[in-house]
Amino acid sequence: MNIDDIVVSKLIFDRFAEKFKDSMEVDVAIAGAGPAGLTAARYLAKAGKKVVIFERKLSPGGGMWGGGMTFPTIIVQEQSKDVLEETGIKIRDEGEGYYSADSIESTVKLCASAIDAGATLLNAISVEDVLIKGKKVNGFVINWSSIEIAGLHVDPLSVRARYCIDATGHAAEVCRIVQRKVGKLNTPSGKIEEEKSMCAEIGEQTVVENTGEVYPGLFVTGMAANAVYGAPRMGPIFGGMLLSGKKAAEMILKKL
Amino acid sequence: MNIDDIVVSKLIFDRFAEKFKDSMEVDVAIAGAGPAGLTAARYLAKAGKKVVIFERKLSPGGGMWGGGMTFPTIIVQEQSKDVLEETGIKIRDEGEGYYSADSIESTVKLCASAIDAGATLLNAISVEDVLIKGKKVNGFVINWSSIEIAGLHVDPLSVRARYCIDATGHAAEVCRIVQRKVGKLNTPSGKIEEEKSMCAEIGEQTVVENTGEVYPGLFVTGMAANAVYGAPRMGPIFGGMLLSGKKAAEMILKKL
Amino acid sequence: MNIDDIVVSKLIFDRFAEKFKDSMEVDVAIAGAGPAGLTAARYLAKAGKKVVIFERKLSPGGGMWGGGMTFPTIIVQEQSKDVLEETGIKIRDEGEGYYSADSIESTVKLCASAIDAGATLLNAISVEDVLIKGKKVNGFVINWSSIEIAGLHVDPLSVRARYCIDATGHAAEVCRIVQRKVGKLNTPSGKIEEEKSMCAEIGEQTVVENTGEVYPGLFVTGMAANAVYGAPRMGPIFGGMLLSGKKAAEMILKKL
Amino acid sequence: MNIDDIVVSKLIFDRFAEKFKDSMEVDVAIAGAGPAGLTAARYLAKAGKKVVIFERKLSPGGGMWGGGMTFPTIIVQEQSKDVLEETGIKIRDEGEGYYSADSIESTVKLCASAIDAGATLLNAISVEDVLIKGKKVNGFVINWSSIEIAGLHVDPLSVRARYCIDATGHAAEVCRIVQRKVGKLNTPSGKIEEEKSMCAEIGEQTVVENTGEVYPGLFVTGMAANAVYGAPRMGPIFGGMLLSGKKAAEMILKKL
Amino acid sequence: MNIDDIVVSKLIFDRFAEKFKDSMEVDVAIAGAGPAGLTAARYLAKAGKKVVIFERKLSPGGGMWGGGMTFPTIIVQEQSKDVLEETGIKIRDEGEGYYSADSIESTVKLCASAIDAGATLLNAISVEDVLIKGKKVNGFVINWSSIEIAGLHVDPLSVRARYCIDATGHAAEVCRIVQRKVGKLNTPSGKIEEEKSMCAEIGEQTVVENTGEVYPGLFVTGMAANAVYGAPRMGPIFGGMLLSGKKAAEMILKKL
Amino acid sequence: MNIDDIVVSKLIFDRFAEKFKDSMEVDVAIAGAGPAGLTAARYLAKAGKKVVIFERKLSPGGGMWGGGMTFPTIIVQEQSKDVLEETGIKIRDEGEGYYSADSIESTVKLCASAIDAGATLLNAISVEDVLIKGKKVNGFVINWSSIEIAGLHVDPLSVRARYCIDATGHAAEVCRIVQRKVGKLNTPSGKIEEEKSMCAEIGEQTVVENTGEVYPGLFVTGMAANAVYGAPRMGPIFGGMLLSGKKAAEMILKKL
Amino acid sequence: MNIDDIVVSKLIFDRFAEKFKDSMEVDVAIAGAGPAGLTAARYLAKAGKKVVIFERKLSPGGGMWGGGMTFPTIIVQEQSKDVLEETGIKIRDEGEGYYSADSIESTVKLCASAIDAGATLLNAISVEDVLIKGKKVNGFVINWSSIEIAGLHVDPLSVRARYCIDATGHAAEVCRIVQRKVGKLNTPSGKIEEEKSMCAEIGEQTVVENTGEVYPGLFVTGMAANAVYGAPRMGPIFGGMLLSGKKAAEMILKKL
Amino acid sequence: MNIDDIVVSKLIFDRFAEKFKDSMEVDVAIAGAGPAGLTAARYLAKAGKKVVIFERKLSPGGGMWGGGMTFPTIIVQEQSKDVLEETGIKIRDEGEGYYSADSIESTVKLCASAIDAGATLLNAISVEDVLIKGKKVNGFVINWSSIEIAGLHVDPLSVRARYCIDATGHAAEVCRIVQRKVGKLNTPSGKIEEEKSMCAEIGEQTVVENTGEVYPGLFVTGMAANAVYGAPRMGPIFGGMLLSGKKAAEMILKKL
Repeated sequence: MNIDDIVVSKLIFDRFAEKFKDSMEVDVAIAGAGPAGLTAARYLAKAGKKVVIFERKLSPGGGMWGGGMTFPTIIVQEQSKDVLEETGIKIRDEGEGYYSADSIESTVKLCASAIDAGATLLNAISVEDVLIKGKKVNGFVINWSSIEIAGLHVDPLSVRARYCIDATGHAAEVCRIVQRKVGKLNTPSGKIEEEKSMCAEIGEQTVVENTGEVYPGLFVTGMAANAVYGAPRMGPIFGGMLLSGKKAAEMILKKL
Repeated sequence: MNIDDIVVSKLIFDRFAEKFKDSMEVDVAIAGAGPAGLTAARYLAKAGKKVVIFERKLSPGGGMWGGGMTFPTIIVQEQSKDVLEETGIKIRDEGEGYYSADSIESTVKLCASAIDAGATLLNAISVEDVLIKGKKVNGFVINWSSIEIAGLHVDPLSVRARYCIDATGHAAEVCRIVQRKVGKLNTPSGKIEEEKSMCAEIGEQTVVENTGEVYPGLFVTGMAANAVYGAPRMGPIFGGMLLSGKKAAEMILKKL
Repeated sequence: MNIDDIVVSKLIFDRFAEKFKDSMEVDVAIAGAGPAGLTAARYLAKAGKKVVIFERKLSPGGGMWGGGMTFPTIIVQEQSKDVLEETGIKIRDEGEGYYSADSIESTVKLCASAIDAGATLLNAISVEDVLIKGKKVNGFVINWSSIEIAGLHVDPLSVRARYCIDATGHAAEVCRIVQRKVGKLNTPSGKIEEEKSMCAEIGEQTVVENTGEVYPGLFVTGMAANAVYGAPRMGPIFGGMLLSGKKAAEMILKKL
Repeated sequence: MNIDDIVVSKLIFDRFAEKFKDSMEVDVAIAGAGPAGLTAARYLAKAGKKVVIFERKLSPGGGMWGGGMTFPTIIVQEQSKDVLEETGIKIRDEGEGYYSADSIESTVKLCASAIDAGATLLNAISVEDVLIKGKKVNGFVINWSSIEIAGLHVDPLSVRARYCIDATGHAAEVCRIVQRKVGKLNTPSGKIEEEKSMCAEIGEQTVVENTGEVYPGLFVTGMAANAVYGAPRMGPIFGGMLLSGKKAAEMILKKL
Repeated sequence: MNIDDIVVSKLIFDRFAEKFKDSMEVDVAIAGAGPAGLTAARYLAKAGKKVVIFERKLSPGGGMWGGGMTFPTIIVQEQSKDVLEETGIKIRDEGEGYYSADSIESTVKLCASAIDAGATLLNAISVEDVLIKGKKVNGFVINWSSIEIAGLHVDPLSVRARYCIDATGHAAEVCRIVQRKVGKLNTPSGKIEEEKSMCAEIGEQTVVENTGEVYPGLFVTGMAANAVYGAPRMGPIFGGMLLSGKKAAEMILKKL
Repeated sequence: MNIDDIVVSKLIFDRFAEKFKDSMEVDVAIAGAGPAGLTAARYLAKAGKKVVIFERKLSPGGGMWGGGMTFPTIIVQEQSKDVLEETGIKIRDEGEGYYSADSIESTVKLCASAIDAGATLLNAISVEDVLIKGKKVNGFVINWSSIEIAGLHVDPLSVRARYCIDATGHAAEVCRIVQRKVGKLNTPSGKIEEEKSMCAEIGEQTVVENTGEVYPGLFVTGMAANAVYGAPRMGPIFGGMLLSGKKAAEMILKKL
Repeated sequence: MNIDDIVVSKLIFDRFAEKFKDSMEVDVAIAGAGPAGLTAARYLAKAGKKVVIFERKLSPGGGMWGGGMTFPTIIVQEQSKDVLEETGIKIRDEGEGYYSADSIESTVKLCASAIDAGATLLNAISVEDVLIKGKKVNGFVINWSSIEIAGLHVDPLSVRARYCIDATGHAAEVCRIVQRKVGKLNTPSGKIEEEKSMCAEIGEQTVVENTGEVYPGLFVTGMAANAVYGAPRMGPIFGGMLLSGKKAAEMILKKL
Repeated sequence: MNIDDIVVSKLIFDRFAEKFKDSMEVDVAIAGAGPAGLTAARYLAKAGKKVVIFERKLSPGGGMWGGGMTFPTIIVQEQSKDVLEETGIKIRDEGEGYYSADSIESTVKLCASAIDAGATLLNAISVEDVLIKGKKVNGFVINWSSIEIAGLHVDPLSVRARYCIDATGHAAEVCRIVQRKVGKLNTPSGKIEEEKSMCAEIGEQTVVENTGEVYPGLFVTGMAANAVYGAPRMGPIFGGMLLSGKKAAEMILKKL
């Protein structure tokens, strides 16, 4: 078969154009394709919602690839095992309620299952601001992340979403923007309380409790939830993250 | 359930220790977890061989994540469609023998299927040299890639493999080391000929033809094959890459 | 009037999609929007040809903005005065055949007149390779220049052109790629001879003489022409550059 | 004709010396050659005033070159269409009150029309401070921007202006200097309120309303006006910017 | 004798695995292998306690190597002479109560004697957080320091210790983490007071006085003690540092 | 004559050792060899005092070398003309009380005359802290500035002085250290008030008025004086600087 | 007296304009204001010739400021003592034909005496190329060095000189340009032979012998002479440098 | 006891002055304080020779601190065990002729034993050139390494040695200087052959064989020996290194 470079180029651009334009008006827009964001996307898409994830890097997965100290294993507990297992990840029973899995396998399968469920994932794109209408976040303001890295002065574009999710991990980037540019968050202090020192036992529990709507239209999930509400970090145990992503999806589904 | 951070830490290290020690003597060691390396690993592992891939970055996938110009789509042709499809990737028929797929879905599923087939993937590790015995490459010399980036002066460790594969893409990093430190490659000039300008039509064909044993014990696959033999590059069309990975696996299986 | 951010975003993307797809098959593709490239584009577009210029930076103009040592004035001679004047640039007669103009005005008006003539100018895009078919350059391989700056590993796309022009100035970037990856250039040594020391008197003359087809399908113009043929540089006198751009256009028009 | 490099050098320096000395006492000095600054300059110069713009970069245009996400198109609305059109920019009616234009064409023609109107534009020069007399800004303190980038320790020079305009965009650089080194601004808090999240609908309106004298002798225009008064940003829609530049000119003309 | 690279690699990893796992539950964990940390480790290990020091750099020694201004000598006083001398360091009596020693010899012998006493020293590892249980620091959260330098996003692991010591010098890194993420320190202000200007006379005395438990479970020693309590720095005189390390050991021994 | 490299090396070190040890106990230590510091040193040394200047860079001169915008001329007024002229600098009368001089000639001759008067100048040395005894600054804490630039962790040494002068220009580095680490300065707010916007008329006057003892044992002179007391900067006019240096010398001479 | 910032600015620019234009046609242009360049300038200017030195840095002096290892002393021998002494530098007789001097005093007085003799010194300007006419260097091509550091793309200007001197030290920058862009140098190999290892005894002698016309119109002096002819370096002994500068002046004076 | 900062400073400088001057004429000067350099120094000093080691970093130890991949263990073989053991390092018998030791303990004790034997170690000093007399290396040309890192232009000083040793590891820095600036090395090609790929078995043997006089007056030891003669590298096994250091000492002792 003859291959024409220009046909290849056009096809690639056409598929992007379709996907990109289609992502400009969605039910839910998610910032960050780490474990919590991918899990939320999976459950939302499974329920038939139109979901787009914007990921700053070329690769999704957030902090999950490296396990702990680049020893590529993650741990989950009894209660979150199912959320992982239904994506086809092989899990090893380590006894006393601990389960281990390969961190790379976990990352790629969480991502694959979100896509299989129907979510759209656009990479190399940063969420640099939110779209505000009245006192509600109603979308993201996006740009190529390479533009940011290169330090070029270029305006962004905007996408509209009925609900937005900040799944940017510890940085809680979207919440930080909202706090600085929009107004008070729904936290005791009205501000981001910042992540506390490591304590898996407490952190695993609070990350689920703290998952929720932190400003009208904006939900927070995963490590970002603990960061926003000042709860402890948890290290390379990912059960709470996954349950938090699931919970964010369920809360939004009730509203949509 | 109570979660103990130290139990988590120990479990993670134990799983790594097992995997790492086990990777020190393998049938095939592959440098680079791009599409060609992952495909080779899949077919080798499926055939029951012990395979380890060392990937310099935290995330596998090489240059596949970004499609073309960060428009996240890839194109494959008729003859390579099956290699992609058997991993569960959704493919769209674009007519005239062209098929498109989401570049992110393709990357994560190529990776997942290599792992499912039984290959081990160790990330954040660089291949900084080869192990030489007589006139044969018989393993890799590895180090944490963060050590490299941080510019620290730390010695590497070694792993033994019956066959090694250079799947490091355009850079052809392992071949370059062998050329500089070991001796002549099995190319017309005895040297790396360097990748030529873009021409998908020719490049797609040569990448399969050039796949092979470039020095005793060392195979080359994917874009590295075209780079070593001075053939054209192909852009975001990945059919040849996949077929090249498959061919490398088949050639080595005959020898093992 | 109500303004909807999403309508704005969609309109902008649609206009780009149109322009970008349309630029994938053109009569003439030009690398570099400096004075020579813009002048060539102007005359080609005026003659009804489909022309696209790819400029690496956000702003066109090359080395013209700063005049000499950031003293923003340029000088032209008698014979090139017309090429400048027909774009509406105000010229001051300095006597003895020298004419001066504001360097900023000159840059913006050269650019405006190329666009008015019908040329398309796409910025923030790098030409990273050429498309080769047989022994002829038949297009450019392009990528976002921010991708390059950010050091991301992302494949490029390709555009087809009946003729290509290297107007990248001293660097002669496209010629350099062709020399390294394709074959011998049409110069005495077959290689790029590199720019010589400053001598406006000779350089102004040679830049026009050296303008031409340096490899089948690839023309060279402006400072790149002097660099390729080893002629002197000229400093902030731009007459030869403009005449060279005009000559390149005329030579290609004869072939189209 | 013989060309003498030294004659060229002397002519260039002489033209600069003339222009530079002449710019040391002006009616209006503008910091920043983005769309608002260029528009203000155009209307002021048209009215016969002596105007100089200092632009930090080699190229004017600010954030306009890249359209949105480097898709080189801008949008304007009904009410600002004229301000754009009178510079000769081709505008496309997109319906429902939206008009699109090529972002590169828009930038070069806004610049050309300011120069044609009689404004002087000096590039590669930073405004690093203001000149204060009593409680009035009465000029700028300038330096080569390359000196800043190179981190050299070199004193600046000063220029006197009856009125100054801060058209430095989001950074509101001049206002920031005045706030830090001189005193309270004419804003509710007396400080810069910082730009709010994206909302074109509101931002387009406020950018015109906020245009005005923010400290005796210092006007603010364009995105800087929204930044100073804490109004939303607008993305790649430039109508408000242009109207703001025009309004700044009109307000100053009444005072001169 | 035949040497097998893989046997070498396995042995090295096995020794590390042993040491690393064994360090995950200790009596005392020390951050920083400078003179105070090494001295504390020596006395604790001598007393039969299980001690691990985590050092961020490849080499221990902190700021001791360079003496003053890279003139490699240190000074100690009468009362701390013994602490130095018992490690075998050659000391020169300079009269009036001053003793000098080679700074390099001092560093290596302080380190050697801590190891000889039974302390474990793990290098290239950063303490990036503390482990908190209730209101007590009960361990460190560690990561490869190359991961930090390389800016990779990778989770840490945790180690448990009955008592922790911050011996990180002026930076008082662990105390700073506790202050920011956990709660009030046991200082007059509840915060780190920051090191004061140089005054050896006072600083030498306060560094011993300030040594102690600054938060439940966390002791501070050496320059970190002066930094936390706002006492003066002392320059290249190390007597107080050594006595502070000894005192920290003695205080903890009473508690264990 | 035979030249022996080792004799050369020894002579150079011996001269340094003499000068360095001799500088460890002085009447006046000055931080910064700009115009104010050099002038103060000249008058102090002329009066027979033992003076040492520590200059962070290899070359003295501070911000004087570049004149204004690297146009190498400085301006002085009537009243400061003598201070300049007595060093042998050629001065041109520009009328109306303005005098100009070559900025390079001025810098080298100010430096030469301080050395001729008997001051010692040690370059490549930073003042990184002060020596405190009771509530008086009684010396500087110094280090090689290359150590600072190289980011090495090396302790400093100390020098004792009856009086210290901060002549570090706008940065007012020593005052900043005293404010942060020692206590309140003798300014209205007790803090550094920070330099104000440009106004030569006022700044020239205040720089002399503000010269004085800003903390027991520490004088401030030159641009540092205006920075500490919140007075305007003056640009490339150096009269006030010189008079300030002279005044600082006179004030200290009364105390010695 | 009232001081007007704008009068100051204008005076400074006027003096520069005068000096800069006057430097565009000279008898001798020197690249580099180190000890050899300054000495050559002194003798040429003394003989009534029009001389300009272009110095890349803000401060002249080259490698002389730091003595050896930043121990600020230099050594000269018997035969070169006079060349130093006639500038008023204090010299100490160290016996056996060695003389020492303060390296800072030496630098400033060499510079002062060149200026006093009538040479013009322009700082912050780089020589980036030579002006060629036929087979003779007849001037320099200059640019602001900050432009170079900032990486801006700006054309240079040219100055004409009857003779040029490369006094750029080890780098032999001008000779390197001539070798690369113009043709063969007057050395045994026709190329720059590169500086050899340290040997003061030989280097001191060859630096004078190698001083001379290395290409028609271009002289080389100081360390550049040894670098071009492959002679040894000499360390912080400066006698040969000074004699070389004097010799270059004498050779050119015979030709003028 | 009262502590006087100035007394401390003076003592430190005096000790350095003594040691530094004393190091300017030695029997043997060694570049690099890694395992081979330290071992050579130990045996030379033990034999009563005057030895100085110059180490570029603040800490000695070279590549030994990190063991393999920062797993801090090293391996030695039977024949080199004694060389390690006599320094007091604890060694563990791993069977089959392999012995392991803690890499940190090994580094500090190798260093301590070299100092105890009487060698002088000066840190933070780079060897930037050699001293040449006739056709013999007779010393090193040294500089502060911080000067190098900071990029300052400062001349070095020189030290004389009867014999010099290049113990700079893989880089073979001194040999590289000699090759480039002095003449042919005593290798088959007369050049540095560059280190080959990993093979401990061969490398361990050749490193001892290759130890020797590579240019009159210059010996090479440790990894530098393998690099110079093109032999394999060995990874974290250090037996050969130590034997090589010992051999270098023995060869030189025969000549002294």
